[in-house]
Amino acid sequence: MDLDELVFHPWVAQGPRRVPTIVAGEGSHVVAADGRRYLDFSSQLVFTNLGHRHPRVVAAIKAQADRLCTLAPAHANDVRNEAARLIVEVAPEGLGHVLFTTGGTEGIEHAVRMARLVTGRPKVLAAYRSYHGSTTTSIHLTGDPRRWASDTGAAGVVHFFGPFPYRSVFGATTPEEEGERALAHLEQVILQEGPTTIAALVLESVTGSSGVVVPPAGYLRGVRELCARHGIVHIADEVLTGFGRTGAWFACDHEDVAPDLLVFAKGVNSGYVPLGGVLVGERVYRAFTERPYPAGLTYSGHPLACAAAVGAIEAMHEEDTVAAAARLGTDVLGPGLKRLAEKHPCVGDLRGIGALWTLELVADRDAGEPLPTGGPQMTAFTKACLDRDLLTLVLANRVHVAPPLNTTDADVTTGLTALDEALTAVDAELRAG
Amino acid sequence: MDLDELVFHPWVAQGPRRVPTIVAGEGSHVVAADGRRYLDFSSQLVFTNLGHRHPRVVAAIKAQADRLCTLAPAHANDVRNEAARLIVEVAPEGLGHVLFTTGGTEGIEHAVRMARLVTGRPKVLAAYRSYHGSTTTSIHLTGDPRRWASDTGAAGVVHFFGPFPYRSVFGATTPEEEGERALAHLEQVILQEGPTTIAALVLESVTGSSGVVVPPAGYLRGVRELCARHGIVHIADEVLTGFGRTGAWFACDHEDVAPDLLVFAKGVNSGYVPLGGVLVGERVYRAFTERPYPAGLTYSGHPLACAAAVGAIEAMHEEDTVAAAARLGTDVLGPGLKRLAEKHPCVGDLRGIGALWTLELVADRDAGEPLPTGGPQMTAFTKACLDRDLLTLVLANRVHVAPPLNTTDADVTTGLTALDEALTAVDAELRAG
Ligand SMILES: Cc1ncc(COP(=O)(O)O)c(C=O)c1O
Ligand SMILES: Cc1ncc(COP(=O)(O)O)c(C=O)c1O
Repeated sequence: MDLDELVFHPWVAQGPRRVPTIVAGEGSHVVAADGRRYLDFSSQLVFTNLGHRHPRVVAAIKAQADRLCTLAPAHANDVRNEAARLIVEVAPEGLGHVLFTTGGTEGIEHAVRMARLVTGRPKVLAAYRSYHGSTTTSIHLTGDPRRWASDTGAAGVVHFFGPFPYRSVFGATTPEEEGERALAHLEQVILQEGPTTIAALVLESVTGSSGVVVPPAGYLRGVRELCARHGIVHIADEVLTGFGRTGAWFACDHEDVAPDLLVFAKGVNSGYVPLGGVLVGERVYRAFTERPYPAGLTYSGHPLACAAAVGAIEAMHEEDTVAAAARLGTDVLGPGLKRLAEKHPCVGDLRGIGALWTLELVADRDAGEPLPTGGPQMTAFTKACLDRDLLTLVLANRVHVAPPLNTTDADVTTGLTALDEALTAVDAELRAG
Repeated sequence: MDLDELVFHPWVAQGPRRVPTIVAGEGSHVVAADGRRYLDFSSQLVFTNLGHRHPRVVAAIKAQADRLCTLAPAHANDVRNEAARLIVEVAPEGLGHVLFTTGGTEGIEHAVRMARLVTGRPKVLAAYRSYHGSTTTSIHLTGDPRRWASDTGAAGVVHFFGPFPYRSVFGATTPEEEGERALAHLEQVILQEGPTTIAALVLESVTGSSGVVVPPAGYLRGVRELCARHGIVHIADEVLTGFGRTGAWFACDHEDVAPDLLVFAKGVNSGYVPLGGVLVGERVYRAFTERPYPAGLTYSGHPLACAAAVGAIEAMHEEDTVAAAARLGTDVLGPGLKRLAEKHPCVGDLRGIGALWTLELVADRDAGEPLPTGGPQMTAFTKACLDRDLLTLVLANRVHVAPPLNTTDADVTTGLTALDEALTAVDAELRAG
């Protein structure tokens, strides 16, 4: 029996599956049980920002394991404190405290609770094109179809349309126009819902797994201002974008926006030990200095997870990983993907920033008709990548390209060549179909 | 500045606090920054079942860190498979698959989603005296007052009264009567709510942090039968009780009850790396062989967490930790606590099994009037323990005693002596008051 069948797998149908069994990793590569090495162009689920087996993070984990793996949140702990210090140091202005969780979805849940308790208001706004996690509040806030199966109609969740120039619902013809119209739309939603009924607005600073949409200049700043004007708690979901992914410590740094709460996970320690959290600004913090914060979790501020964060953030400082991600975007990966997008008729749109990109594959470039999810062309694409020892993250008709931030130029070139060939296979499928 | 102030703390008011900074651990002890050693009589939050720095678990973590810390759930992984195999091997009959999460609350969320999707029914029953976690569904299922601040009135949650002989709401005078009346009450709730509207019943097999209530013989089996009769998915919450805590692998083993879904966390790897999960039985599994399970989390089946589970479960087999926990209950800790309960007028009730006990402190033994939460007597108690280098878990008027399962008899004796003295301090406070 294949023991993988004992594992109940998220997001898919159960039963036997044909995927490589990965047993080891090294930098931007993973190694399967049969010895085959794959180049990881997706940082797994966009979280191994430093790649695998980063010596500094591994050493931090092993040293902590020799001392103290775990501790209840009620006791104070040196390495937890140090992780908080390092995170606050790189965080946007005014976010001075950290509630640690074990991942992104719990961060969203706690942030929303904080906002509701601080404002005394019931509603939470979120964008249609978004993913915020799989627990009850975060899946209801999720805007894309991943929500549907779990949607029991949570009271107080209201969705709005964010900017998406490629498929504008506002009839905009330029990104600037799209940004302006999306802001005007959001303002209308706030006014119609009633500003005094809205506790929080949750927004990915750059949309991640729902399509890598970089907001037009000014949009994020406009959202921040709308929130401030109406006393709405601005919760930035930087689970996927935080810690360098977009070529800045946080994606909201690109517009110098500081939210009230910022949710992080993934890149904080490259996922070496499960960790997430909420960066808490003064407004929310002050509300809980006298009154207890009425919730928690067993592994809040877990020492081993925090040690991995300390190792990872120190490594990012030393190796200037954030600048490396920015350079990947402007000089290496970005231009390389641009060439592929121009060359291959099946690429309808290329979007991205730093080390976070997506190619939208379409049947027809002019009509923008998406290739069908799980259809023959997308299947051919995935197979062609695997045949060339390349791991990518394919979601619907999109190929998400998000390698570790410290991927070498040579590895990027190798990956781009494989992508080129895989896109050629899709072009051929399309001509054949 | 004390860096602990950068950490936003669960369950309490923020700001400076006076708690020891713990920097190391060894077996049943933790060590503070000032070198002081504390005996941990609470296994932190009842999860370090093997104590700190268990060599086998530490070695498993370090070996895995050298190979592969992390991996996306979509790829297969050797150590994840092995963890699933070891967990299924000790699980109650028929629970053949594992969805891994990062902790207890996410396990509850996923189990409830599974039950709703499988049955197509909306409601979930849970006991008033219970804790199930802090995300939206699990906090609403939570029965005790920890729910109140987060309670926005989730649709479909219905609470019932479980058996509690010490403070019977059924007017019962014996545990047997209490068990029977609690079952009859539950049946009435099911009939009045409408069996065909109820997706799941979530129940701690032994109530944990809400008061360590061991159900009267026959109760759990009766619950199982009610669920089976009405097609209700029985979800056993064994987050706190699982993996040996009660002197059996799972608390439902005491009554040979196998639920449809079983949620675990904590003891699975003694919390060395955040890990939890749902053991999935055939009925639910079969529903997701064709249809995808429509949710997930980034760190499902995290290799480092799974490696710690493999190390921990192997250690528990080798060292017969489950038998050691049973013996603590019958021969060492149980009898010792019984002597304290008889000796000290402030102890109203002693309840427990295996290595999971609670002392209810009261102002008046006959009236059973609880000592006020955070009042002078409970404060005196906590201080007296800390002065004697003993960590306990004090919740409301209860002292939870739950040492690591492999605590030596000598350490138990030391801890009992400290408890004895601390209870004497409470008695004195009461006489003085
Ligand atoms: C933007 C965003 N928010 C939240 C989450 C949920 O995080 P987790 O899977 O760690 O619970 C994710 C996960 O991919 C994410 O991309
Ligand atoms: C019985 C029970 N269920 C669920 C939970 C929630 O687990 P976690 O804190 O890991 O999310 C706990 C935590 O103490 C628990 O004791």
